[in-house]
Amino acid sequence: MKKPLILVTNDDGITAPGLRTLVRLMKTLGDVIVVAPDSPQSGMGHAITLDSTLYSKKMATDTEETGNEEYSCSGTPADCVKLALQELLDRKPDICVSGINHGSNSSINVIYSGTMSAAIEAGIEGIPAIGFSLCDYNWDADFSHSDSFITQIVTEALANGIPKGVVLNVNIPKLEKKQLKGIKICRQARANWKEKFDKRTSPMGKDYYWLTGKFELLDKGEDTDEWALANGYISVVPTQFDLTAHHVIQELNSWGL
Amino acid sequence: MKKPLILVTNDDGITAPGLRTLVRLMKTLGDVIVVAPDSPQSGMGHAITLDSTLYSKKMATDTEETGNEEYSCSGTPADCVKLALQELLDRKPDICVSGINHGSNSSINVIYSGTMSAAIEAGIEGIPAIGFSLCDYNWDADFSHSDSFITQIVTEALANGIPKGVVLNVNIPKLEKKQLKGIKICRQARANWKEKFDKRTSPMGKDYYWLTGKFELLDKGEDTDEWALANGYISVVPTQFDLTAHHVIQELNSWGL
Repeated sequence: MKKPLILVTNDDGITAPGLRTLVRLMKTLGDVIVVAPDSPQSGMGHAITLDSTLYSKKMATDTEETGNEEYSCSGTPADCVKLALQELLDRKPDICVSGINHGSNSSINVIYSGTMSAAIEAGIEGIPAIGFSLCDYNWDADFSHSDSFITQIVTEALANGIPKGVVLNVNIPKLEKKQLKGIKICRQARANWKEKFDKRTSPMGKDYYWLTGKFELLDKGEDTDEWALANGYISVVPTQFDLTAHHVIQELNSWGL
Repeated sequence: MKKPLILVTNDDGITAPGLRTLVRLMKTLGDVIVVAPDSPQSGMGHAITLDSTLYSKKMATDTEETGNEEYSCSGTPADCVKLALQELLDRKPDICVSGINHGSNSSINVIYSGTMSAAIEAGIEGIPAIGFSLCDYNWDADFSHSDSFITQIVTEALANGIPKGVVLNVNIPKLEKKQLKGIKICRQARANWKEKFDKRTSPMGKDYYWLTGKFELLDKGEDTDEWALANGYISVVPTQFDLTAHHVIQELNSWGL
C-alpha cells in the first residue's frame, strides 16, 4: 500500500523545534514533504504575498537523510501551502499538518494565527488539515509529552477524513505527560485581547509603539477550548472558513434595506 | 444630540480614493476619525505586528478642514484599529467602517482581506463594524454609484445595531448607478482560487515566483454573495469570528480520541 503523503508547514519557520518535532512524528505515518517559511511569521493571520516576489529553496534540513524533501519559502504560511500544492508537490497530499506552534492558538487567537492560516489554506483546497499548537512560547519548549496524542489525532484524521469545509485546531496545554488527561472536542471560547501600546521615543526623537496585551476570557462555558486547556485536556476545535453568520440573515432581512 | 463617532480605516492606505469616498460619506452621518495604513496592505488577512515597532503620524489629509482628525499608521489594518481604540481615540466609536476597498472581498476573499480584518478587529472589540468593497481593482474606479446605498447601510446599522459577534461584509458590483437593483442579504459563496505561479529568473540568476490565480466559483446557490453581485445587487454577508463548525462537534466525538 502506498504510504500517505503528508505536507508539513508552520509559521515559526523551517528550523523551529516545534516543526522538527512534527516532522519526526509524521515520518512514522507516511512520506513527509516540508514547505515552511524561511523566517518567523507569527501573527501573520491569513496574509498572502500579492505585490512582491516569492523565493523558495530546497533545504538539507532532513539530517536523517530519509529522502523526504524540504523547502523553505520567503512568503507567509498561506503562501507556503499555495506554493507547495501548485509547484513543489507532484501529487496532492493526503493531509496537511501545521505547527507545532510555539504558543497558543486557542480561542480568538485562531484569527491571528499563521499556523492555522496554513491549515485553513489547505482546507480551502480540499485537503484534510490540522493545526497544532503548544501553549508555551519558549523556543526550547518540551514537545515530547504530546507525541502520542498528535500521532493519534493524525491517524484518526487519515482514517476518517475530516468533514468538508472544516479544519482542526488542536491546542496542547503546557503540562507534564502524566498530568495530561486526554483530548476534548470543543468550541472556540469567546475572548479578546486587552491591548496596551508601549509608547517610546527613538534615539532620533521619533515616537513609536510596541503592541502588548493581556488575554481576556469572556466565556464561562465548560465546552470551550480554554476550559479544556485549563483542565488538563488537549483541545480540538473544528474550525470553518465559511464565515457566514447564518443565524443572523433573517434579522438583517428585517432592516429597511 | 451628540453626533456618532465613526472610525474609518482601510487596507489600500490613507490616500486611496475608496477611503476618501467613505470619509466624505461618513461626514454626513457623524464625526469622523481616520486611522489607516501609510502604505497599501492588500492581502494582509488578519496580520498584526508582533515583533516590530509601529509608527503613527497625524496627517493633514482632511483638506476641507472640518476638524476631523486623521492618522496614518505603519502597521496592518488590524493594527490600525487596535491603535485607534487604545491610543488615538478618546472615546469608543459608535461604528467602524473599512474601505471602500479597491477590489472584491466577496466569497472566500474575506479570508485574505485586510479590509475585512480591520472590520473584524473592531467587531472583536465590541464595536459595530462594516467592510465595504467595490468589485473594481482600478485605482481610479468610479465609487459614486453606491453613495446612497453605503449611507443607507451605515444609517441602518447605527439605528439597529449589529448583532454581537457579527460584522457586515458589503460588496458592490461594478455597474452604472441605474443598473444597480438594490441590496441583498447573502451567505458567503463556496469558492476558491486556482493558483498559478509565474516562475521567473532574476538578473542575478535566482529563480522566483509571482503568485497569480483565477477565481473559481463552486456554488450555484441563488442566496450567495456571488449570485447577488452577478445579478446587479449589492451583497451584504453577516460575517462571524467564532470559527467553530458547531455542526461537526458531534461527528468528531464519534472518533476514537
